Amino acid sequence: MTGTFKLLGCDTVTSARIGRLHTAHGIVKTPIFMPVGTQATVKCMSPHELRELNAQIILSNTYHLVVRPGIDLIAKAGGLHKFMSWDGPILTDSGGYQVFSLTKLRKISKEGVEFQSHVDGATLFLGPREAIAAQVALGSDVMMAFDECPPWPCDREYACSSLDLTLQWAARCREQKISDGQLLFGIVQGSTYPDLRERSARELVAMDFDGYAIGGVSVGEPPAEMLRQVEMAVPFLPTDKPRYLMGVGTPPQILNMIARGVDMFDCVLPTRIARNGTVFTARGTYAVKNAKYREDFGPLEDGCECHTCRNFSRAYIRHLFRTSEILGLRLLSWHNLHMYLSTVRRAREAIAAGHFEEFRREFTAGYAERTEEIDENV
Amino acid sequence: MTGTFKLLGCDTVTSARIGRLHTAHGIVKTPIFMPVGTQATVKCMSPHELRELNAQIILSNTYHLVVRPGIDLIAKAGGLHKFMSWDGPILTDSGGYQVFSLTKLRKISKEGVEFQSHVDGATLFLGPREAIAAQVALGSDVMMAFDECPPWPCDREYACSSLDLTLQWAARCREQKISDGQLLFGIVQGSTYPDLRERSARELVAMDFDGYAIGGVSVGEPPAEMLRQVEMAVPFLPTDKPRYLMGVGTPPQILNMIARGVDMFDCVLPTRIARNGTVFTARGTYAVKNAKYREDFGPLEDGCECHTCRNFSRAYIRHLFRTSEILGLRLLSWHNLHMYLSTVRRAREAIAAGHFEEFRREFTAGYAERTEEIDENV
Repeated sequence: MTGTFKLLGCDTVTSARIGRLHTAHGIVKTPIFMPVGTQATVKCMSPHELRELNAQIILSNTYHLVVRPGIDLIAKAGGLHKFMSWDGPILTDSGGYQVFSLTKLRKISKEGVEFQSHVDGATLFLGPREAIAAQVALGSDVMMAFDECPPWPCDREYACSSLDLTLQWAARCREQKISDGQLLFGIVQGSTYPDLRERSARELVAMDFDGYAIGGVSVGEPPAEMLRQVEMAVPFLPTDKPRYLMGVGTPPQILNMIARGVDMFDCVLPTRIARNGTVFTARGTYAVKNAKYREDFGPLEDGCECHTCRNFSRAYIRHLFRTSEILGLRLLSWHNLHMYLSTVRRAREAIAAGHFEEFRREFTAGYAERTEEIDENV
Repeated sequence: MTGTFKLLGCDTVTSARIGRLHTAHGIVKTPIFMPVGTQATVKCMSPHELRELNAQIILSNTYHLVVRPGIDLIAKAGGLHKFMSWDGPILTDSGGYQVFSLTKLRKISKEGVEFQSHVDGATLFLGPREAIAAQVALGSDVMMAFDECPPWPCDREYACSSLDLTLQWAARCREQKISDGQLLFGIVQGSTYPDLRERSARELVAMDFDGYAIGGVSVGEPPAEMLRQVEMAVPFLPTDKPRYLMGVGTPPQILNMIARGVDMFDCVLPTRIARNGTVFTARGTYAVKNAKYREDFGPLEDGCECHTCRNFSRAYIRHLFRTSEILGLRLLSWHNLHMYLSTVRRAREAIAAGHFEEFRREFTAGYAERTEEIDENV
C-alpha cells in the first residue's frame, strides 16, 4: 500500500478533497499541515510533543542537514527518523529552494549547483543526483525533486530557461535509484506564466511522480498572485496523486488553497512567529507581550484544547517572554502548531461532512490579521 | 500533619538521615534536591516534565518575582502554584541573598534594605515584614526568613553585626501572620566563626522555626570551608526539624553534606551548565559539544533511564547545540536534573538500607571532575 494515495472524497462546491497518503512510516490524512523541522528538530518542540499534537508528518530541509551535521552522519545514525527520534512520516525538500535563497557564489550547470555554505563558507555541490542520494540516505518517506526556484518577479526568458533546467533535473531525479517505500514528488515551476506552468505540470506528470508540488510561491509575490499560480497548475495535475503547496501560509491562505484542491502544506510561520511572542488564533494574531495581557489570567485562545491553553495563562506566558524564559517559546510554539493542525483537521472534517465552503467562509470572516503593536517593552 | 517532619531513620556510620516533610502540597521525602525555578519556571523545563522527573519540590526566588512580574500579579493569579501550573510543594527564599548579591545602592536599616532592581533600576524595599508578606502572597509551602548574607571572606566585626541584624530580622519574621499550612525556616549565619554559628543556631532554635537553613555558604569559599561551616551549625540544630543547605552544590558535595545530617538542597548547577552543553554523570562532567562525540550514537550516560537517554544520542544532542536549537538545552537540562534527583534518591535508598557511607564513598571515587575542553567549535 505504501506510496498509494487514496482519494476518499471531493467537495461538491469547491475543489477541496480528502484522502489518505500511505507512507513507510504511516498513513497521512489529507489535507495536512506539516510542521517544519529544518535542522532535524521542529524548533522548541520535542518529537513526543509533536505526537501529542497529532502531527501526522513533519518536514525537514535537506540543504540544512547537508550543511550540519552532514548526511553521512545521519546515515550512520540509521537515518533521519532514528537520529531525531521521530517514527512518523517525514517529507524532505531537495535543497533547491535554499541553494537559491540562502547561498552565495552559485555556479549553475546542468549537473547542479556549486555553492557556499551559509554557515562556514564551505564549498558544496547539490544537483539532482546528490539531492536524491541525500534523501535516500536520510530515509525520507517523501522526497522532493531538485529544482531551481526562480525569484519573483521573473522575466519570461529567465523563467523559461529555468524551467528547462528544472525539467531536466526532474527527469534525472526520476532515474535515480531510491529505496523501497520512498515516494518522490515532482515540483511544478514556471513563475507567473500560465503556459510555462501548464508545460511544467504536463511534463512532470508524464514522468509519473508519486505526487506533485507547486513551487516558486511564497517568494515575495502578493497573495493574489500565489493563488493565480496555483490555479494555473492544478488543472493539469492528476486527481489520484497528492498536491503539495510549498511554504504556504497563513491559516486563511491554507483554507483557500484547500478549496483549490491542494492536499499538503508546510510553513515556518506558526513556530517562527511564536518565538516573537505572536499568537495564532481563529480570530487572527496578537502579541502576548502586549501590556493589556499583564493581568489576563485566561488562556491564549478561549476554548482552545491545547496543552498550553489547558494549563497556562496569558499573564504567565507574557511574564515568560518578558523574562526571556525558554518555556515561553515552547508554550507558544505548541499553541500555534495546535492552531494550524486543528484548523486543517477541521477542514478535513468539514469536507467529509459536505460543508467545507461554509466552514472556510466563516473561518475567513472571523479571522482578522490584527497584529498588535507591543505597547510596553520592559 | 502539615508542617511536621518525621524522622524515619538515621545512618549508624554517618549523620545521614531519612525523613518526611509534610507540606500543604504533598509529602517530601528527604534528603531531597530541589530544582531551581527562579522566575516561576525551572529553566527550559515544563512543570509536567518536572512531575515526570519525580521532582518532589521546587524552589523559586522571591527577589526575582518581586522584580518581575511583581507579587501582586501572582497573588491575583491565585498564587505561585496556580500562576506557574505546578501543584507540588514550593520553597521560596526570602530575597535576602539576591538583595545583597545582585543589587546596587543598598540602604540597610533595621527595617530592611532599600535597593535598586537589577533589571530596570526601580527602587524597591525588602525587609522581614515585606519578605514574609510576599511569600504569604505567593502561597509558598516553605518560606525562608529574611537574612543578611555576608560575603566571604568577612571580618569578625562585620560578621557579628550582620548576625545581630539577621537575628532581629528572624524574630520579626517569626511574628508575622502567615497562612495555615505554610512553614517558615530560619537561616543560620555567622560566617566562618564557630561561636557566631553556634549563637545563630541556638537563638533561632529558641524562636522555634519549622526548619533551619545554613546560609552564607556557596559565596565563593573553598569546599573545605563550606564543610566546616556546616559542621559548626548542625550540632546545635534539633534532630526533629529539617536542615537545608542553601545553594549547594555538586553531587559529591551534596552526598558529603547528607553525611553531615543535611536534608535539603537546591542548586542552579544542573540546569545552568546544561545550557553550556555540560553533562552531569556519575563519572563526572563532560562537554557534549566536544568533537569526539560527533559520531557517538550512545546516550549521554550509559545505563541512564531518563527521557533524554532513552530517546536521543550524544551525536544528536551535539548537533542541536552546534545549531543553537532549543531542544538541545531542554534535553540536557532534563538529563542533568534526572542525574541530581536520582543521585539523591539513591542516597535515600542507601540510608534506608544501611549502607549510605559505602554508597557515598563509591560514588565519590567514581566521580571525577573532568570538564573537557571543547576542541571543535564549528
